[in-house]
Amino acid sequence: MFLCLPHGNAMTNLDRYRTLSSRLIDLSGDFRLNDAEAFETWYQTPHTCPERLEDFVYGIPEINRDRIAGADLVTGAGCNATATILALRPLFRRGLVTQAVVEVKAGSSEGGNSASAASHHPERSGAVRSYKPTGHRHVAEMLQELGADANIHFSATSIEMVRGILATCHVFLGAELTEKDVWKLYREDYDGEPFVRIVKERSGIYRYPEPKLLSGTNFCDIGFEKDAGSNRLVVMSAIDNLMKGAAGQAVQAFNVMHGFDERTALGFAGLHPI
Amino acid sequence: MFLCLPHGNAMTNLDRYRTLSSRLIDLSGDFRLNDAEAFETWYQTPHTCPERLEDFVYGIPEINRDRIAGADLVTGAGCNATATILALRPLFRRGLVTQAVVEVKAGSSEGGNSASAASHHPERSGAVRSYKPTGHRHVAEMLQELGADANIHFSATSIEMVRGILATCHVFLGAELTEKDVWKLYREDYDGEPFVRIVKERSGIYRYPEPKLLSGTNFCDIGFEKDAGSNRLVVMSAIDNLMKGAAGQAVQAFNVMHGFDERTALGFAGLHPI
Amino acid sequence: MFLCLPHGNAMTNLDRYRTLSSRLIDLSGDFRLNDAEAFETWYQTPHTCPERLEDFVYGIPEINRDRIAGADLVTGAGCNATATILALRPLFRRGLVTQAVVEVKAGSSEGGNSASAASHHPERSGAVRSYKPTGHRHVAEMLQELGADANIHFSATSIEMVRGILATCHVFLGAELTEKDVWKLYREDYDGEPFVRIVKERSGIYRYPEPKLLSGTNFCDIGFEKDAGSNRLVVMSAIDNLMKGAAGQAVQAFNVMHGFDERTALGFAGLHPI
Amino acid sequence: MFLCLPHGNAMTNLDRYRTLSSRLIDLSGDFRLNDAEAFETWYQTPHTCPERLEDFVYGIPEINRDRIAGADLVTGAGCNATATILALRPLFRRGLVTQAVVEVKAGSSEGGNSASAASHHPERSGAVRSYKPTGHRHVAEMLQELGADANIHFSATSIEMVRGILATCHVFLGAELTEKDVWKLYREDYDGEPFVRIVKERSGIYRYPEPKLLSGTNFCDIGFEKDAGSNRLVVMSAIDNLMKGAAGQAVQAFNVMHGFDERTALGFAGLHPI
Repeated sequence: MFLCLPHGNAMTNLDRYRTLSSRLIDLSGDFRLNDAEAFETWYQTPHTCPERLEDFVYGIPEINRDRIAGADLVTGAGCNATATILALRPLFRRGLVTQAVVEVKAGSSEGGNSASAASHHPERSGAVRSYKPTGHRHVAEMLQELGADANIHFSATSIEMVRGILATCHVFLGAELTEKDVWKLYREDYDGEPFVRIVKERSGIYRYPEPKLLSGTNFCDIGFEKDAGSNRLVVMSAIDNLMKGAAGQAVQAFNVMHGFDERTALGFAGLHPI
Repeated sequence: MFLCLPHGNAMTNLDRYRTLSSRLIDLSGDFRLNDAEAFETWYQTPHTCPERLEDFVYGIPEINRDRIAGADLVTGAGCNATATILALRPLFRRGLVTQAVVEVKAGSSEGGNSASAASHHPERSGAVRSYKPTGHRHVAEMLQELGADANIHFSATSIEMVRGILATCHVFLGAELTEKDVWKLYREDYDGEPFVRIVKERSGIYRYPEPKLLSGTNFCDIGFEKDAGSNRLVVMSAIDNLMKGAAGQAVQAFNVMHGFDERTALGFAGLHPI
Repeated sequence: MFLCLPHGNAMTNLDRYRTLSSRLIDLSGDFRLNDAEAFETWYQTPHTCPERLEDFVYGIPEINRDRIAGADLVTGAGCNATATILALRPLFRRGLVTQAVVEVKAGSSEGGNSASAASHHPERSGAVRSYKPTGHRHVAEMLQELGADANIHFSATSIEMVRGILATCHVFLGAELTEKDVWKLYREDYDGEPFVRIVKERSGIYRYPEPKLLSGTNFCDIGFEKDAGSNRLVVMSAIDNLMKGAAGQAVQAFNVMHGFDERTALGFAGLHPI
Repeated sequence: MFLCLPHGNAMTNLDRYRTLSSRLIDLSGDFRLNDAEAFETWYQTPHTCPERLEDFVYGIPEINRDRIAGADLVTGAGCNATATILALRPLFRRGLVTQAVVEVKAGSSEGGNSASAASHHPERSGAVRSYKPTGHRHVAEMLQELGADANIHFSATSIEMVRGILATCHVFLGAELTEKDVWKLYREDYDGEPFVRIVKERSGIYRYPEPKLLSGTNFCDIGFEKDAGSNRLVVMSAIDNLMKGAAGQAVQAFNVMHGFDERTALGFAGLHPI
């Protein structure tokens, strides 16, 4: 069963929901962090069900597939966290990163489905709005999945878009890597993944990942470019925040939990132009 | 003094506002119609100050300049009404129209500055929404200014835009008129008007009026095209609904009331591209 | 075989294409009109293969299903023509219309995939551009399918949108019809149609058809509202011009020609929000 | 005289233009760098008039006002360079920066006024496109004005917007600075500047700079936020790339050169909403 509830609800009523279904996927932020102290730091409220935190598996199948397959409790991942973690994990887990600066460009659907003064169309239309230059909660998920000592810095900017995220990740490498080396690492990690694609073209309009091409799909497209004059590698990742960043990824995790083909109900290839 | 209040406030408190200023320009709909019965029909509520209705002058300077110059009480005009009346008056007042069908394309700022489910960016973005196919209140103003027997039919559609109105008016003529004849009529009526421009080019991108070019300006641009195979004349007019359709026109009326140069504080020529 | 070629190519090379496939669906305008004289009038060039014009079936399955099922040669229908014909046919074929004025709001993909000064993003973005106030070629298709004596008047306006058409049709009725009567007529004609939906809600944001909800789908959504004070009925229809207005409808016709389930390869239900 | 010519023209024909006017402001990239070698590195073509490079003053009045006042030859500054330099100069010139990562979000007008496949509306609309993750030419200007050893890393992303730039600058500080300290530095440098504003609000929708509010104006709005958990300071700057990033700043420099009030012909305060 999917729990699509406001933040705070799942941790308060977990036992009740468990009586309804033995397997739960919670889409809120309640169980994303497995550490109660970290939760309190980032969410600025104590966790009301800390004894269950360790039971939840963080629901990005590309990094936790085996654990999800055997789990009864799975938590969805934050949309910004998903885009960032998938973009950077091949580098972080090999100890290649000395520092990363991540800039997410996000659409208005990330703000949820409740109207507000800031989401009023005349005010939100055309916005390029720094809504979280520092202190974004999803950083906690990144630190959990990329390493507690990950030197990662994150900002988010709202732009004119409904669905979609582009994460531009400026990675400072601790080792000499050519673009060919980078290709190799990403291929090693993502070869065979049904929802991760490496996008890096020499010419044409779409040389790098673009979220609008992914609207309605569960893909995470990843591209990169090495700075010729420094140790900076720019890694770009794009997702539809309502799919791979939320419901789509939850369906993917559901498929893994139940032993279904992971692509079940996720076959849409996107629209172009859109 | 300008009254920028929610509908219903001015008619309830008029006497009080009059003690504050001998000259008032009301931007609400309260005093646009000079007939109490018509008000009740279109606003579906009785007028609470019917004795003052006749004292207000309808504030489109291009048609009521002399009366505005001598008035103490002026009412603003509806944005859709302004665009339509300026587009069609040269034809209606000469008795040339047998029927008119007017389709307004409007931006989100026309809906006011309060957030709602319909104005929530993920829902409003990209909308092409028939919000008033029939029964729009501004029709009452059109009938008042174009003639009670004007055979006019109106619809409004919200599109992806913040500021701006394009009125496409399908006019069925009762007389044979060439485009040259039409030019002549419009020149007669609008020659020397500082805020009305005839836009009709044979080539280029901007052959007809476009609201985005008028953002922030007080212009009403008018163009037309005669259908070669019928008696239909398509007249297009564009305004910025927050300027010529509201505050800008009120400032223009204010200038007329006070004997100032009509263009005072209205000199902005617009941005391109925008 | 689908012919997706520039206008003029199919009529020049038809015999060659026929040797490649016994069944052809031509997406250009070459064979949409079955009368060579009408073609020359609207396309301003003589038809180079007039002897074949009568062999082509006009490819809107909702009106020509049986003929398409038995045809070797099918022509696609214009996008504006499709939206208009599906909206108005139930009324015209019953002789209920004295006059119709149709205003289409169209996206930039309708202009094709070649870049031009007018399609340059800084110029096209935010446009509300009267690109064909009179004389649009698709009118010829409407007259052919709705009746040569159909009193129909058409204009098209480009708006900020990539995919999509909303046709607002102001229909002046020759008979007294209530909204309930209109419901009945449309249900009679479209009941069981897999790609036509009647959209008419009393409340909510989406009370009438909206093209953005149809992006990527083959649906034609139709709604209507009767003017309380006149004989005007406003009929609104929305399609994705690249689907029901082009390739999608061609696939639908292909399915009919070959006896496949008409919905084959057309199952996408659309994205919301988008 | 302003030279608004394609890149390469001014350096080829400079002598001819000098005979037309003793004072020139060149808006191309030809004379922005005062070093011929740097020019060849970043523009990948030799400079054809290297003997004049040192005669040009880099035309950002806020940093070179005195030199511009006495100059005959002034060069405009790149739009991305202007936004970045104004954002970071107070920190760099005090030696406070160990590293800076700058992410610019840019509108379609930055690409110039020639149509291309990439600027075709159906392809450009809604884009979030990494058009220069590394190697952007404007970096050369940043290095020249912020210090040859400035440790600065730059990427640019095209978003859905016509006019405007938002530069998000992630600055890693070499000293402990509170937000109050930062306020003080920026006030010291920009107090009295007519076109630089510090924007940093505790609440409301517009807490940080936003380019859409600056459309048509010559302002550069700057805001900042200190990361509570690290030495990162996020500095955000917004301009209209066609004004403060191009023609507007050139007019400002022209005013300085001629001893006019610097704000002459630059008084527009912007539109809201837009």
